[in-house]
Amino acid sequence: MKRALLLSFIWLTAVNIAVAQELKSPDGNLEMEFSLQEDGTPVYQLDYKDKEVIESSKLGLDLKDAEDLLSGFSISSTNTSTFDETWKPVWGETSEIRNNYNELEVQLEQESTDRTMIIRFRLFDDGLGFRYEFPEQENLVYFVIEEERTQFAMTGDHTAFWIPGDYDSQEYDYTESKLSEIHGKFDEAVTSNASQEQFSKTGVQTSLMMKTEDDLYINLHEAALKEYSLMNLNLDDETMIFESWLTPDAIGNKGYIHAPAVSPWRTIMVSDDARDILSSNMNLNLNEPNKLEDTSWIRPIKYVGVWWEMITGKSSWAYTDELHSVKLGETDYTKTKRSEKHAANTEHVKDYIDFAAEHGFDAVLVEGWNEGWEDWFGNSKDYVFAFVTPYPDYDVEEIHEYAQSKGVKMIMHHETSGAIRNYERHLDTAYQLMKKYDYPAVKSGYVGDIIPRGEYHYGQWAINHYLYAVKKAADYKVMVNAHEAVRPTGLRRTYPNLIANESARGTEFQAFGGSNPNHVTILPFTRLIGGPMDYTPGIFEMDISKLNPDNDSHVNSTLANQLALYVTMYSPLQMAADLPENYMKFPDAFQFIKDVAVDWDKSIYLEAEPGDYITVARKEKNGNDWFVGNVNGNEVRTSNIKFDFLDKGKTYIATIYSDAPDAHYKTNPQAFEIKKYSVDNRSELSQKSAPGGGYAISIMEADKSVVKNLKKL
Amino acid sequence: MKRALLLSFIWLTAVNIAVAQELKSPDGNLEMEFSLQEDGTPVYQLDYKDKEVIESSKLGLDLKDAEDLLSGFSISSTNTSTFDETWKPVWGETSEIRNNYNELEVQLEQESTDRTMIIRFRLFDDGLGFRYEFPEQENLVYFVIEEERTQFAMTGDHTAFWIPGDYDSQEYDYTESKLSEIHGKFDEAVTSNASQEQFSKTGVQTSLMMKTEDDLYINLHEAALKEYSLMNLNLDDETMIFESWLTPDAIGNKGYIHAPAVSPWRTIMVSDDARDILSSNMNLNLNEPNKLEDTSWIRPIKYVGVWWEMITGKSSWAYTDELHSVKLGETDYTKTKRSEKHAANTEHVKDYIDFAAEHGFDAVLVEGWNEGWEDWFGNSKDYVFAFVTPYPDYDVEEIHEYAQSKGVKMIMHHETSGAIRNYERHLDTAYQLMKKYDYPAVKSGYVGDIIPRGEYHYGQWAINHYLYAVKKAADYKVMVNAHEAVRPTGLRRTYPNLIANESARGTEFQAFGGSNPNHVTILPFTRLIGGPMDYTPGIFEMDISKLNPDNDSHVNSTLANQLALYVTMYSPLQMAADLPENYMKFPDAFQFIKDVAVDWDKSIYLEAEPGDYITVARKEKNGNDWFVGNVNGNEVRTSNIKFDFLDKGKTYIATIYSDAPDAHYKTNPQAFEIKKYSVDNRSELSQKSAPGGGYAISIMEADKSVVKNLKKL
Repeated sequence: MKRALLLSFIWLTAVNIAVAQELKSPDGNLEMEFSLQEDGTPVYQLDYKDKEVIESSKLGLDLKDAEDLLSGFSISSTNTSTFDETWKPVWGETSEIRNNYNELEVQLEQESTDRTMIIRFRLFDDGLGFRYEFPEQENLVYFVIEEERTQFAMTGDHTAFWIPGDYDSQEYDYTESKLSEIHGKFDEAVTSNASQEQFSKTGVQTSLMMKTEDDLYINLHEAALKEYSLMNLNLDDETMIFESWLTPDAIGNKGYIHAPAVSPWRTIMVSDDARDILSSNMNLNLNEPNKLEDTSWIRPIKYVGVWWEMITGKSSWAYTDELHSVKLGETDYTKTKRSEKHAANTEHVKDYIDFAAEHGFDAVLVEGWNEGWEDWFGNSKDYVFAFVTPYPDYDVEEIHEYAQSKGVKMIMHHETSGAIRNYERHLDTAYQLMKKYDYPAVKSGYVGDIIPRGEYHYGQWAINHYLYAVKKAADYKVMVNAHEAVRPTGLRRTYPNLIANESARGTEFQAFGGSNPNHVTILPFTRLIGGPMDYTPGIFEMDISKLNPDNDSHVNSTLANQLALYVTMYSPLQMAADLPENYMKFPDAFQFIKDVAVDWDKSIYLEAEPGDYITVARKEKNGNDWFVGNVNGNEVRTSNIKFDFLDKGKTYIATIYSDAPDAHYKTNPQAFEIKKYSVDNRSELSQKSAPGGGYAISIMEADKSVVKNLKKL
Repeated sequence: MKRALLLSFIWLTAVNIAVAQELKSPDGNLEMEFSLQEDGTPVYQLDYKDKEVIESSKLGLDLKDAEDLLSGFSISSTNTSTFDETWKPVWGETSEIRNNYNELEVQLEQESTDRTMIIRFRLFDDGLGFRYEFPEQENLVYFVIEEERTQFAMTGDHTAFWIPGDYDSQEYDYTESKLSEIHGKFDEAVTSNASQEQFSKTGVQTSLMMKTEDDLYINLHEAALKEYSLMNLNLDDETMIFESWLTPDAIGNKGYIHAPAVSPWRTIMVSDDARDILSSNMNLNLNEPNKLEDTSWIRPIKYVGVWWEMITGKSSWAYTDELHSVKLGETDYTKTKRSEKHAANTEHVKDYIDFAAEHGFDAVLVEGWNEGWEDWFGNSKDYVFAFVTPYPDYDVEEIHEYAQSKGVKMIMHHETSGAIRNYERHLDTAYQLMKKYDYPAVKSGYVGDIIPRGEYHYGQWAINHYLYAVKKAADYKVMVNAHEAVRPTGLRRTYPNLIANESARGTEFQAFGGSNPNHVTILPFTRLIGGPMDYTPGIFEMDISKLNPDNDSHVNSTLANQLALYVTMYSPLQMAADLPENYMKFPDAFQFIKDVAVDWDKSIYLEAEPGDYITVARKEKNGNDWFVGNVNGNEVRTSNIKFDFLDKGKTYIATIYSDAPDAHYKTNPQAFEIKKYSVDNRSELSQKSAPGGGYAISIMEADKSVVKNLKKL
């Protein structure tokens, strides 16, 4: 009876408010409108400074074996509110983050089915976020998504920085093209990988960065992806309408929802200044606050590792060349001949620990330490690793004690080969081993197709797993750096032990044929919107054949560019990825990697243009030093920056690590210069960067005796 | 170089032995022949007492994306051997089992691909077992099975007792028909279930029982199903050739093999006496010996449980009627109204404990004790149960203490709803709770479609899980009784803590509309070939509406038939499934259930005809009592048995629980008689059994004072 009364009340309300709902951002620059079409289809549109950003776009979902949630809606209630708070992340680009938005909650009633759906819009100064909410109700409890039908109607044939839409991989170089050119360039954009599955020749991934002809920067992504499958975008290149395209499961279903539930946030960032896209915290703000009670054990890390030598083919993960297959627990490695190339051996790892200790790194990662690498992926092998069984030449105990004596931590490595069930079966014992030997963090990997076959890396089932592993890690006070997992969507706010992901084309591809020289001028506009990347920068030797004569790959980057990445590619986990001997050839340049901070109080984007350049200044947390990074695109360019971010009245020493005048990512990548100046907040710099180049600057409070001898900038 | 030499040696050998290989059973009654067809296709045939049982039938496998393993073979070596040993099962129908066979190992070389496959045949007096073996080699390491192509060519249009081939369910009534009639009767044979998937209108399941026109009994099944998918059989009803049909995964692949590996054994039992099929231990003998070091904690159990009242609809698993959905950890049950029908409450369970203690039962099963039953299947709900969280009205601690004080154990219940990953995530904590409260056994359930969707109950992925759960249970000294899991194939020999399965249409269907009255005369010839079934017999009230007025189902069985099941349906786990109050209406009949043993020294099949009748005498382990059971089919029949199995010279008291003369499963199911006689090994019995009826006899060593007053049989 109560319910009937409530419904008639809602129905009455609905009639009254079936008009367009408007919402403005706090600064008034963004304006959105929500309305219902005649048939009750929800639509929204978005303007920025009176320019249209998103044309009228439909909202809703196709359901499987049930009435769709697309039309036949009326508005039963609306609610607007304002939110403004400042919160402190455990780690980040800034020590404080303001979360300020105006909210519109629209409650929709589908009368023919007596079902309710809420669409919640949050309009920030830097963009719009909205999501679907399915409140507790009688007629919508469990349902299966056939497809989410969220539209993003573009106003024209924008320039986009895109990678092919895929259910399994994001490890692609970006293509810069008009939207209308995606279809034609799609096949060329698809490069091979251990696991990949495209779905449409106009399908692209988020975060998608675009630029309009009138110089608006638009970015589409999602936030807080949990218990849902990942969204790609499919473009109708006649109408220039993007529509959401979720990742299916093995039988083609795109999501299993149990109300009350919410979708991830769909995000549209927009500005006429590209720097605003980079400095935006909207994605983080759309995630829930930290859920971990104790975060004292979570801290940024700068590390080295036994890794690049395997990536380049100089060394091997595998212990032996004699086995073409391994059965864990049955294969007796002590009866096989150890390969001279097996890098993860106790003595060699001790060398890395020595190197780390000498140069002030926090930790050492070791890959290839555990049994199973002889046939680790591509074989539908379920029990591929046990995560606790070292090779005969790797003494966990001895390495632990040695590292401890040197004040260095070890970083664990768990390659799952996509065998998710197997990993979960071993998670507890794996984390227990880590606690026993005081490993603060794990790098996990998901190379190859997911097992069971038919599931995808970005489907709901796998996404559930990644978060399960992160939560369980938190129980053991372990930080997680997951590679080949789903791309981040700001979950680090809620679970700050998720310190990094790969989820993009990382530095390893520089040893697999090379990446575009301007790759790193795009990643912060795309992949990094959702969270930090373990990009593994710091390669000093660009000619890979010097490490491995059989590998003629070239690192398409200058050495100065590699240094700049520690500042431009924000991450609380930063690797110095090259071999110690390569660093020892350039101890002066290496100094920057040793000096640079990994956690920040402030971040100021000085220059930015996707595909062309990014220049950022960051102030270290709990200190007064600043670091500046500039990465440059495919063409030579002069960067002009002001040091007005520095404290007024103070004098600093700026050490500038820049491309030499004749540097070039291809022909002369190791040509760099180091210059020291005294600077203050009136200083300015005009600095040329080579193609694929850049510069890095450390700015430290000056010791007066030194400043005297320096030129003023 | 070594390898090249070895290969040429093999090639030379191959040429020499490309002739038919023959093998005889130890008693000489069975004879098989293996040969290669002209194109190198392996074939076998089987005779019994010079009658053809299996006509020339092909062997081999279709591989995916690789050369098939079907033809092009030559024989590189053969090896014959004899095996004869007697072993003692931890529990069983007999205390000693003889394992006696002649073996033929045929090593095949596929020269075009340089691959080796072994087919191993074991010929017992009661049948043939053979399997494929893929030894360690360079060119056959990882492969995917597209289909196994094992043929079983029948010699004619036999009578078969079959259920529809299915990837998810075996819970069907049997159809008795000619092979040629399967297609026409298929649709009718398919009755609904929570999860099912048929694949062909001539597809049937194993164990398949057949009878030829010249009265040979043939049974096809498999043994030792591990790391492989379950085999159904598909009939070509023109040629009367059955071919193996494996269960696919979500993308249609039928098996992922990593050599060295073996297939399960394919088994053909044959005799001219149906009793030999029932007494055969071939399936067990084809399994590996016990792998558990300590088995002292494994012991047969007779139990009662809070179960039949929910099955009939008298009571409910769910705590409340107020919730249409539950989110574990979020739903607060203390804020909902408890349903009066919720059976698993402390007080009610105590009554069951009292009943168990009073009547000498070992244990009490309780279902519906844990949070989640309000929406427990059919919803693609992953986190459906946590396996450790009791409802507010169920006090685990109090029940534990009460049961302990009464000398009764509690049996745990884990319904997984097919959410395999969720179960595995909770297995350790679930078993830990069991150890804390001294539960000796768990009944696990897999109702509904498997999650992730697309996987099947009998696919390799799920099969891997069932054994994983059994092995992990052994670590905690827990016995497993898995329902809706894959049907057993003798694995109990290797893991004797797998004490029972359901994996067939059990007694519950008597409350869901009823089963065929002769169902239990077929099950021992089919489902029980692979291992014991938790059939849950002992229903005394056949009119279900007396328990629940809304349920008009009728139990198609007489009361005497229900008693006989404790002897005819061998299981080390036997439930008295009816409500205590129904037993208390017939305390004289109930006495048999109290008396009957659950572990045996000897089993002697006295009469048997599939679909018609089974009569068996069993001697209890560690005692001198015998128990006889007779189950009867659809027609009235007189059973004639001799008591010559008894010790010579001893006098026993036989208590015969039989159908009353006017008993009938439908019209007069509760009409029974109890008579006592003195018997010795010269006694004979001629006893009429009603349609759907039977009789049970307890035979106990006689107290002389009592014998005096008894008539001699």
